[in-house]
Amino acid sequence: MDARDKVLTMDTLNPCVREMEYAVRGPIVARATALENELKDGADKPFKKVVKANIGDCHATGQKPITFIRQVLALVTYPDVLMNSPDFPDDAKDRAKKILAACRGGSIGSYSESPGLLAIRTDICAYIENRDGHPSNPDDIIMSTGASDAIKTIMTLLLTGKGGSERAGIMIPVPQYPLYSAAIAEFNAYPIRYYLNEDNHWSLEVDELKRAIKEAKPNCQPRAICVINPGNPTGQVLTKENIESVIKFARDEKLFILADEVYQHNIWAKGSKFFSFKKVLMEMGEPYSSMELASFMSASKGFMGECGYRGGYAEVINLVPEVRAQLTKSISAKLCPPVSGQAVMDVIVNPPHPEEPSYEQFTKEKEHVLAQLKEKAKFVTELFNSIEGITCNEVQGAMYAFPRLHLPPKAVEAAKAAGKTPDSFYCFALLEEMGICTVPGSGFGEQPGTYHFRITILPQLDELKEVLGNFKDFHLRFLAKYK
Amino acid sequence: MDARDKVLTMDTLNPCVREMEYAVRGPIVARATALENELKDGADKPFKKVVKANIGDCHATGQKPITFIRQVLALVTYPDVLMNSPDFPDDAKDRAKKILAACRGGSIGSYSESPGLLAIRTDICAYIENRDGHPSNPDDIIMSTGASDAIKTIMTLLLTGKGGSERAGIMIPVPQYPLYSAAIAEFNAYPIRYYLNEDNHWSLEVDELKRAIKEAKPNCQPRAICVINPGNPTGQVLTKENIESVIKFARDEKLFILADEVYQHNIWAKGSKFFSFKKVLMEMGEPYSSMELASFMSASKGFMGECGYRGGYAEVINLVPEVRAQLTKSISAKLCPPVSGQAVMDVIVNPPHPEEPSYEQFTKEKEHVLAQLKEKAKFVTELFNSIEGITCNEVQGAMYAFPRLHLPPKAVEAAKAAGKTPDSFYCFALLEEMGICTVPGSGFGEQPGTYHFRITILPQLDELKEVLGNFKDFHLRFLAKYK
Repeated sequence: MDARDKVLTMDTLNPCVREMEYAVRGPIVARATALENELKDGADKPFKKVVKANIGDCHATGQKPITFIRQVLALVTYPDVLMNSPDFPDDAKDRAKKILAACRGGSIGSYSESPGLLAIRTDICAYIENRDGHPSNPDDIIMSTGASDAIKTIMTLLLTGKGGSERAGIMIPVPQYPLYSAAIAEFNAYPIRYYLNEDNHWSLEVDELKRAIKEAKPNCQPRAICVINPGNPTGQVLTKENIESVIKFARDEKLFILADEVYQHNIWAKGSKFFSFKKVLMEMGEPYSSMELASFMSASKGFMGECGYRGGYAEVINLVPEVRAQLTKSISAKLCPPVSGQAVMDVIVNPPHPEEPSYEQFTKEKEHVLAQLKEKAKFVTELFNSIEGITCNEVQGAMYAFPRLHLPPKAVEAAKAAGKTPDSFYCFALLEEMGICTVPGSGFGEQPGTYHFRITILPQLDELKEVLGNFKDFHLRFLAKYK
Repeated sequence: MDARDKVLTMDTLNPCVREMEYAVRGPIVARATALENELKDGADKPFKKVVKANIGDCHATGQKPITFIRQVLALVTYPDVLMNSPDFPDDAKDRAKKILAACRGGSIGSYSESPGLLAIRTDICAYIENRDGHPSNPDDIIMSTGASDAIKTIMTLLLTGKGGSERAGIMIPVPQYPLYSAAIAEFNAYPIRYYLNEDNHWSLEVDELKRAIKEAKPNCQPRAICVINPGNPTGQVLTKENIESVIKFARDEKLFILADEVYQHNIWAKGSKFFSFKKVLMEMGEPYSSMELASFMSASKGFMGECGYRGGYAEVINLVPEVRAQLTKSISAKLCPPVSGQAVMDVIVNPPHPEEPSYEQFTKEKEHVLAQLKEKAKFVTELFNSIEGITCNEVQGAMYAFPRLHLPPKAVEAAKAAGKTPDSFYCFALLEEMGICTVPGSGFGEQPGTYHFRITILPQLDELKEVLGNFKDFHLRFLAKYK
């Protein structure tokens, strides 16, 4: 059959799909996987192992699952036998019974309600109330297949169904987590890019928001502003005052707030504290406390790192009732998010209590993971800042460093000659010479003429120290080569 | 805050979301849930229990999970302890080890590749090869969050990114599973509706396909044809010859084939046999064997009914390489489908072998579920056909009966006065008087002037017999009331 007879060619493929990019799983990751296979086949490389520091995939880099999470999950999976097993503590059994009692037919193999099991949404609300000091309503919670799914669901509501200058405009930070630009491309919406200020710890400044929206207005209908806090890939933690200023801006411009708060457990810097947009908005009082806001949370980050279960939720507040009903309807055709992922989320938001048998071990495991991450955040910040030609803002939160590369003009030219962006050129060299897989800053967006890369702080501390031990040599070699 | 200050109102909400409908979880289900709560609160009703026969939710209606599936899942969840437990057979342990070896960091808590773990996709291919007698390539498999997710992913490729008469046209059967109409509405595509012939066992006739596409061409760019086999809600099983005729039609009209084959294990009628579109297309030879086809499969139906795990996959063949790369890219931003659901799918496609310790029990459990379903399919077909004013095609496959109601004109008028479609009016009466929750045929589409409802055959046989025991009385009362 001739290719011309195909329904789908690059010419007929949905042009929005063609435009999508998702750098975290882009060409450099494919090359890293190829290198892994070459090593397996005995190839001689200047490194023994490829370290995939491109993605926030906690267990992949050796982080151990939290025992209590897995105990509860095993119990809800195979209760007939395991409920009688001495290998499980009573609080894990009680929790499993509670979850199974909420499932139709007593099985996690049945569909839940489309927004998730009510019993788990109720636990999520208790977590949010405890975190913020403000009430939360289970009807405002929609659970999801990872946070990404919830983000796309809410974005879908905001689309205009129109093209050209009537497209929905969604404000996103630059640098940003590329799910946002990918979803905006897929939905044929318009990205309104606001730059974070690298010179001031990647701060989010209202003057820049004003510039961005003003320039975008001829091209779209601005509908929403997305804020990632703690930042990905940039690692900043917003202050309460900064969040207030964003909320005021959103109110002035009539924007729906999308608060990506999946790293809310990952706060490292002295003096940094996590404030949810919900809490700040509630405490600002009317009219701000009636503004529409969706806050996203994930089972994949924090101390648990249960990426594979694809658990997540959004708290979506202040929708008019008719729109809330439409949101519920819009998720019903997806049936429901994975019930096992919902169960993981239940343990995350409602961990063992101090009087329960698993409390001590759970707390120890959680604190260990967080303490390690904190140490790694400090280590990478200091390391990168100790090297000529690199500057790196403090990793205040989240799981990534986003160092800036001050590259000589000859390196930029060499990259151009190789058909790559300068940071991509650098990251490929880092992969080929050191076996470290990172993501070029251009995949997240950056100020023109600046170059970065994103590296996760997830590899185990000794591995991270070993792998980055020779980083300085690599970098100085690279600089010398293009001096 | 005034509602006029809200970003989202019914006027500004994405109009495509407003248009979506998904009847399987529509208003009648909300009423059923309300009735359940009234019963809990001690309300006096003509029934003791609400039977939710609206949705193919196997475990919810008492079907037991397959033991081997749950053993493997428990083992991959909590291997440190359970691998040493005497409660698990060796073949379950071996399988769990194989799956964990495929997971990064040896944990199902890490992300898999976006199309799913290669080891599991390889098992899927072996299943398909064994089923069809034709090779299958792991690169052609994309695993998904239930089949629905994969269906939407493939549909997304087929969109034109344009509006009006340049929209993508997707042929769907009427009656159809409403995921299709909901996704088409969400994507602003154009549904090209072809009617199944109720007078001939819901057959799929090429003349009708030709009529439908001819009438639709001024309104859209036809891109794909969706076929559900075995049928949902209609329960027909297509013959090989019928499938050949659809493939020829798709070739003539240059359509991508979307084959919804999630009920491939659910074949009941004597003389009915499942033929996959892939097998038929391959055996037709060129040019047909090079046509683009996506076949969808789910962990939620068949004999396993593991709806809550949200496992599914598509085999997508004959894409041009550039388009296949775009498909891979397009799913990368979703990261991956739930790994626990992938593990469930692995057991489904690669069950215990005859020489393994779990073979006997697995086979016994599987055969029991299928035998029960077969008996129920026969029971409901016979029951409905024994009642005046109802006709029902044989439930040849899948999990639903879709009986036709021959309603007197006064019932149609009464429905109109109540602001309901006649079948919705009937289904609400059935719910209020008998406690049986079904879905009105209008939610799936039907020939104008005909009325149906969909009822699952999933409730346990004794319950089904008890619940439907008085169905005849209800129906005759209803007829008498509107005579």
